[in-house]
Amino acid sequence: MNIKMMGRFIAQIIAIEAAFMIPALFISLGYGEWPGVKAFGITIGIMILLAAGMFLLCRKAGRLFGAREGFVCVALSWIVMSLLGALPLVLCGQVPRYIDALFEIVSGFTTTGASVIADVEGLYRGILYWRSFTHWVGGMGVLVFLLAVLPTGNGAGFTMHLLRAESPGPDVGKLVPKMRQTALILYCIYIVLTIINFIFLLSGKMHWLHALCTAFGTAGTGGFGTLNTSLAEVSPYIQNVTTVFMFLFGINFSCFYLLLLGKLRSILKDEELRLYVCLAIACVVSLVLAIRPLYGTLEETIRHAAFQVSSIMTTTGFSTTDFDLWPSFAKGILLLLMVVGACAGSTGGGLKCIRVLLLFKVLGRNIRQILNPRNVLVVRSNGKVVDEKVLSNTNAYFAAYMIILVLGTLILSLDGFSVETNLSAALATFNNIGPGLGAVGPTCNFAAYSDLSKVTMCLMMLAGRLEIFPLLVLFSRSTWTRK
Amino acid sequence: MNIKMMGRFIAQIIAIEAAFMIPALFISLGYGEWPGVKAFGITIGIMILLAAGMFLLCRKAGRLFGAREGFVCVALSWIVMSLLGALPLVLCGQVPRYIDALFEIVSGFTTTGASVIADVEGLYRGILYWRSFTHWVGGMGVLVFLLAVLPTGNGAGFTMHLLRAESPGPDVGKLVPKMRQTALILYCIYIVLTIINFIFLLSGKMHWLHALCTAFGTAGTGGFGTLNTSLAEVSPYIQNVTTVFMFLFGINFSCFYLLLLGKLRSILKDEELRLYVCLAIACVVSLVLAIRPLYGTLEETIRHAAFQVSSIMTTTGFSTTDFDLWPSFAKGILLLLMVVGACAGSTGGGLKCIRVLLLFKVLGRNIRQILNPRNVLVVRSNGKVVDEKVLSNTNAYFAAYMIILVLGTLILSLDGFSVETNLSAALATFNNIGPGLGAVGPTCNFAAYSDLSKVTMCLMMLAGRLEIFPLLVLFSRSTWTRK
Repeated sequence: MNIKMMGRFIAQIIAIEAAFMIPALFISLGYGEWPGVKAFGITIGIMILLAAGMFLLCRKAGRLFGAREGFVCVALSWIVMSLLGALPLVLCGQVPRYIDALFEIVSGFTTTGASVIADVEGLYRGILYWRSFTHWVGGMGVLVFLLAVLPTGNGAGFTMHLLRAESPGPDVGKLVPKMRQTALILYCIYIVLTIINFIFLLSGKMHWLHALCTAFGTAGTGGFGTLNTSLAEVSPYIQNVTTVFMFLFGINFSCFYLLLLGKLRSILKDEELRLYVCLAIACVVSLVLAIRPLYGTLEETIRHAAFQVSSIMTTTGFSTTDFDLWPSFAKGILLLLMVVGACAGSTGGGLKCIRVLLLFKVLGRNIRQILNPRNVLVVRSNGKVVDEKVLSNTNAYFAAYMIILVLGTLILSLDGFSVETNLSAALATFNNIGPGLGAVGPTCNFAAYSDLSKVTMCLMMLAGRLEIFPLLVLFSRSTWTRK
Repeated sequence: MNIKMMGRFIAQIIAIEAAFMIPALFISLGYGEWPGVKAFGITIGIMILLAAGMFLLCRKAGRLFGAREGFVCVALSWIVMSLLGALPLVLCGQVPRYIDALFEIVSGFTTTGASVIADVEGLYRGILYWRSFTHWVGGMGVLVFLLAVLPTGNGAGFTMHLLRAESPGPDVGKLVPKMRQTALILYCIYIVLTIINFIFLLSGKMHWLHALCTAFGTAGTGGFGTLNTSLAEVSPYIQNVTTVFMFLFGINFSCFYLLLLGKLRSILKDEELRLYVCLAIACVVSLVLAIRPLYGTLEETIRHAAFQVSSIMTTTGFSTTDFDLWPSFAKGILLLLMVVGACAGSTGGGLKCIRVLLLFKVLGRNIRQILNPRNVLVVRSNGKVVDEKVLSNTNAYFAAYMIILVLGTLILSLDGFSVETNLSAALATFNNIGPGLGAVGPTCNFAAYSDLSKVTMCLMMLAGRLEIFPLLVLFSRSTWTRK
């Protein structure tokens, strides 16, 4: 492992983050919020100095290549981005403790949306913008952005490994032969969809900053709101627009690319998309039946059910109602959706529909294997044979997922909250959802947890967003001891 | 699938169950409990008629062989045994509803120990004996018993498949080349250990019937008690004896065989046993720290911690204290132990330590594979390379485990209990433990659940005991449609 190579790479990431922070500085200036101006100014200054220093120190490094460097770079980049991105919240004085600011910004970059801030409406507008912007940049991935806009000076193999480590899903699909163009196409689709969402929100008479933040939160499937009650008090129109766009951002982006190419039939045949749509419909119907007595009209019931399904399944985490008050069965469905999550290749989190599909298929094969012990059976997805290596990775991912979930829940339970609270807090952070149930329900926040639990949840959010392995590789002893 | 072959096989199982019921009839006679005598008499009569009829109808069948028949025979045998074994409870009048009796007996055979009977002390002694005896016979498996004592007239391959389907663990270990002798050795060890346990309990001044039932419950890692407060009000001596024996019955029985052969070193090197012992010690220590303030003396704290760890980890389900009142962290540890379970090849349930170990190893291999993409890496257990087929089976088992757990919890949540109650009820039945937390905690029972939930839990208990696949094969369409 060459430290210099990594240093130069991280320096680039820090420079990009500084550039991303400039709009927040201007918004603070525009609204005359001087503590915000000071906070962003100092942070951008620190970042520029740090990036320049690291770049100078490490400028004579060779090229990066290989999967190991890819994984370590991704993990380190995200940790450094979070550590620096949390500074403005502390420097402006609105989040006194650094650990809370870190939790908030990790929650932002990982598109979790879990918050420790009770009074969101009291935040400076620059901070509000920055907090939501982290969702947007975290949704598609800052390294993907780096690849799309800058010549990194590294090998094509390394680019591939980076994308593989940062993009959600068991296998990264190349849209076009060149990785850099793939990254560019993905970001273009992402930007266009976000702008359309923004325009829809504006036409619902939402304030431009709130509309922008909500669009960021929707696009990144993050869930930081600009109101203390999330989206409970906005108009039904805005709620419905958000329902639709959350659902769209949970779809594999390659489907949108295929749509642009006019290949509608291959979209309709996509097994993951089918599972995603069918599961969503089934859950909305079940929820409507379960919560019908709680709301006045059928329209309201369907609106809340659809919004919550879309929000939880895509792991966004906005809410229009306090679903912690729903009956057990409805809560059970939400917990199920928390685990399943959205499609691979989207900005959503969770296990991903394709992994759930593969698990069922592996199970089916095992049963067929018992019945036909002599045959060699394969698993097919979308008509193609799935490589045994992808299956083995899926299984390892599933194992890692369960182990981390169990250990995380155990650490959280040291704080003495109920089992429901701890389990849903672990799920909500690990799957990058945001609100859980009980003491971390949609009307509450995560401030009451201890520092140990907050650090644990930060690591779980990062593990969830980066799909576990980059972090495991980073903390694996053999990464650092062997050549 | 040849129905006649299966009919003859099931007839043998029914005949054995009738024979197993005779001691209960004599105990009822001895205590002059006439409703019990009537109930067991009628049931034994029905069983003999049924077995004889089925045997005559199906006597001209050929031999059974193959994995498919093995799995279906195991699943059907257990279902038929449960359906018939529940009859005495209804016929004697003490459990008015058949579904409750079925739940109780499925809970017995699967060594779960979850009960719907609040007043255990009011049961007829014959019923008490029968209820606990189902634990004992279910622990090692009635088909294993059949193999050990009777010439089944079927092929050696079939015998192998039967044992594989009924014995817990990812891979069945042959102690000696012949399967029938293996079954015989296992049962001998089982009987001897049970007798030693019985003698230890008797020497603690326990009534012989209570001692016998407790020994059955311990040996099968079942957990049906003979007192309303489980083992909370017996002497510390009896509690400690039970702690030790529960732990012993959670060890892979091949270890005892190796001990008899004097191969102490290969026992000490066994990775699963090491994990089992280390995990138990770690959990006892953590629990002692967590619950120390609740008990007067350190001795009492350690006794309760060790007992509960031994009871939950081996999935027995006896209790000496109401652990539902323990703090969240302690409950979290118990939930963890519920999932992990005992060793493969023991009478305990759960995922089994060896599977957890394999999951960690698969995960470790995946990380090493990322770091060394070109190497072909294998997983080793006890120094030997683990067959990829066993790993694939373990993964499929894990997938099936999680899917059933999630769906089961969802069905239970229809009844409106808390998330903690539903999740722990699903875990407690699926892992064959017995008591859960909340409304199904150690001082409560499962009677309040609806009939749908009880049927679901019956299926989960059977799926847990038979390690899922026999039931999945039984309910799989292709089992019945294809040649």
